[in-house]
Amino acid sequence: MSKEKQQNIEAITNMEEDFAKWYTDVIMKAELADYSPIKGFMVIRPYGFAIWENIKNAYDKRFKETGHENMYFPLLIPESLLKKEAEHVEGFAPEVAWVTHGGDNELTERYCVRPTSETIICSMYAKWLHTWRQLPFLYNQWCNVVRWEKTTRPFLRTSEFLWQEGHTLHETEPEAQAETMQMLEIYRQVAEEYLAVPMVVGQKSEKEKFAGAHATYTMEALMHDGQALQSGTSHNLGQHFTKAFDIMYTNRQGEREHPYHTSWGISTRLIGAVIMVHGDNSGLMLPPKIAPIQVVIVPIAQHKEGVLDHAYALKDTLGELRVKIDDSDAYSPGWKFSQWEMKGVPLRIEIGPKDIQNEKCVFVRRDTGEKFDVLLKDVAQTAREMLEEIQKNMLVRATKMRDEKTQVAHSIDETIEKLKANPGFIKAMWCGSRECEDKLKELTGTSIRCIPFEQENIGSDQCICCGQSPSQMVYLARAY
Amino acid sequence: MSKEKQQNIEAITNMEEDFAKWYTDVIMKAELADYSPIKGFMVIRPYGFAIWENIKNAYDKRFKETGHENMYFPLLIPESLLKKEAEHVEGFAPEVAWVTHGGDNELTERYCVRPTSETIICSMYAKWLHTWRQLPFLYNQWCNVVRWEKTTRPFLRTSEFLWQEGHTLHETEPEAQAETMQMLEIYRQVAEEYLAVPMVVGQKSEKEKFAGAHATYTMEALMHDGQALQSGTSHNLGQHFTKAFDIMYTNRQGEREHPYHTSWGISTRLIGAVIMVHGDNSGLMLPPKIAPIQVVIVPIAQHKEGVLDHAYALKDTLGELRVKIDDSDAYSPGWKFSQWEMKGVPLRIEIGPKDIQNEKCVFVRRDTGEKFDVLLKDVAQTAREMLEEIQKNMLVRATKMRDEKTQVAHSIDETIEKLKANPGFIKAMWCGSRECEDKLKELTGTSIRCIPFEQENIGSDQCICCGQSPSQMVYLARAY
Repeated sequence: MSKEKQQNIEAITNMEEDFAKWYTDVIMKAELADYSPIKGFMVIRPYGFAIWENIKNAYDKRFKETGHENMYFPLLIPESLLKKEAEHVEGFAPEVAWVTHGGDNELTERYCVRPTSETIICSMYAKWLHTWRQLPFLYNQWCNVVRWEKTTRPFLRTSEFLWQEGHTLHETEPEAQAETMQMLEIYRQVAEEYLAVPMVVGQKSEKEKFAGAHATYTMEALMHDGQALQSGTSHNLGQHFTKAFDIMYTNRQGEREHPYHTSWGISTRLIGAVIMVHGDNSGLMLPPKIAPIQVVIVPIAQHKEGVLDHAYALKDTLGELRVKIDDSDAYSPGWKFSQWEMKGVPLRIEIGPKDIQNEKCVFVRRDTGEKFDVLLKDVAQTAREMLEEIQKNMLVRATKMRDEKTQVAHSIDETIEKLKANPGFIKAMWCGSRECEDKLKELTGTSIRCIPFEQENIGSDQCICCGQSPSQMVYLARAY
Repeated sequence: MSKEKQQNIEAITNMEEDFAKWYTDVIMKAELADYSPIKGFMVIRPYGFAIWENIKNAYDKRFKETGHENMYFPLLIPESLLKKEAEHVEGFAPEVAWVTHGGDNELTERYCVRPTSETIICSMYAKWLHTWRQLPFLYNQWCNVVRWEKTTRPFLRTSEFLWQEGHTLHETEPEAQAETMQMLEIYRQVAEEYLAVPMVVGQKSEKEKFAGAHATYTMEALMHDGQALQSGTSHNLGQHFTKAFDIMYTNRQGEREHPYHTSWGISTRLIGAVIMVHGDNSGLMLPPKIAPIQVVIVPIAQHKEGVLDHAYALKDTLGELRVKIDDSDAYSPGWKFSQWEMKGVPLRIEIGPKDIQNEKCVFVRRDTGEKFDVLLKDVAQTAREMLEEIQKNMLVRATKMRDEKTQVAHSIDETIEKLKANPGFIKAMWCGSRECEDKLKELTGTSIRCIPFEQENIGSDQCICCGQSPSQMVYLARAY
């Protein structure tokens, strides 16, 4: 390792030493986000926000392709509305921010800053819906929400975060269930295709489901340190809210009926997943499809005649990609190399006087560190192909990492032992009782991440806790 | 007018009878927005939000082309931060919402919901800026803001609205001034090119400028009822905030210095301008570039063989445009015509059995009401050309309307008289004193909308109020 590279990255803690510190170091050094003067609230800096814009655009496109439209609801929700669905208020009231004054006047009723918008949206749906002809309602909003958190970590858990929340209404229960599944599947597909983060998909236990849901489905990713991250949830809300909010319509038979309801959300938390799944001790590693800068061109000996001209010509050749030339004269090429590695740029192109003589340049992959000579005439095609290759390789590698950290256990002792040796997912059998779920948590520190759709035969049918059968397979893990 | 059309639009008040009621009728009937359970807060419905997305995308593209990057700052601002710039807190404190509790706990310091973000952004810029090499800072955020308003009207004045706020730092005062002017010019260009709303651009008086600004520049549009609408502002903030927030950097000479600062914003209010500039007694009229639906195809006698097939084939032909087929069997063609006129769709295509026999269809322009037969083979090209023509015509027509409502006055009496006969802009001379500005307001109900960059000789050099000369030309109007 060059001295410059060492200097530049020495501020990043080694991930094996202290993963939590490595994580925040990467965020700060790569300028993804920063702490703000308000405890628990973060600032998303331009480089981090550009990643979010790319993630958001990928999802938004899929939402629209499946017939959803965006809208926007008020930030504030009157306390009386929040209270209309009993489980819901119980779940959220302890963590909301309360607005009590408008200007100099005390309000007659407190408003909470939305922690999620089921209640305010249902109050409007009740007004808008009249007949089955209007159904389904397929709407979504991208917005900020506030949940007053005691312990916060950038992107993973902050008192304010950006997300989208879809809210749909349907004529029948099966249609609502199909929508719930469709959105979870879109979540998974985009996560794998764009973020290169493999997901385990399944259902949440009763204990872990959304406050007010009939059933909650989730996608769960595994981080480098073996902890799971809940990365997106899709809820079949049944008629809980539509009854509480008196949403009714005239059905095809001319009768008045409550529609079936779903909601689903992903958030800036996904950026945390990208950091913790792909990053290494050189810093961030971004999948090309969401990287704000896909290719960085670093001119070598840029004061020499023709070098910068060739660098700019290269950029023109790569017109359709997101390319940056680092032509700053304040830093050496070595410093720039480690700087852009730290920022996770998937592909670096170096070009200097000798390369130009040989009508070539040098490609360096961020994912493997491999270096290649590439003829100048082949640059456009090779870059395009290599970015595709990097995108694919990152998913393959992340899947391999996840699978290596996924183990089977048949007893609580085995769970503890295996997690100690190799933290990650534990596949185990569970009888479905809350008692066993709580006991598992107490004894192993894990929670049931989900009951996966893909059930496997792991050689036993008995609950890992109480021995009862039949049981179902679950994924256990410590989680963010 | 057909009976169906009458029925359909009778719920819209005639604009000559009651313009304010016409405005809200159009918003409600076209489903752009709705009132929410929280007084002063509105819901932006899908059709309204799609217009906002088109406006936002047009501006965002121009911001990025001029080197600006997006980021995101916290929703809440501690009271102590808001108070750091004296004029600023005085301007905003009376209209902010205060958060006093997080969950069950009372906060040790009140937080306000951002009315604008200069203070929180400056507190972070102070941390990030070190050297001239980092300048300029060219950043923007798209977000929601809250200003507790007593009297509200959808899109024009609501307690919460969506906007963007650009915040930039520069080495020199001339650079900051150039940025301020550049952004105002981008505001004007997009407003005219996309929204087809002509703007008067100029400087705000001391009285009307932003709380804490060195100088505020504005673009002002004139509504159908002769009232002006401030549609976007760009502020040269000088060093007011950078001094108050201790933002310093090492300049090229190695000295510590405060940078120069700008901010600039446009909001969902622009949708109000589009409604009130282009709408008529049939409802909304949308410029093609921001219309969620650019072309609506209405099949005639759609149960007859081949009609729907031809309608769908037409849609395929128009692939690159935003096209909707209204193939509902619940409504008659006549009802659909008036429905889509009310929603302001720029171009309607009708196709029925007779048309198909003659290998043609019928185009109807929303802006002029004109009908044309178009051969099926020419549909794609004609539609594209006609949308361009409509876009241009709407700007020409809005400019003509604005100019017809712009008059010159040389006395207060003349101002009152002319505004009574023909409400709109009054071009008049003003000495620059606050006394005359206040007197004008009191006697005529108008405010100084701006001191336009394009000064004209209106035949006198004397202040309309006190007679003093030299004076400058200003635009007066009653305003939203």
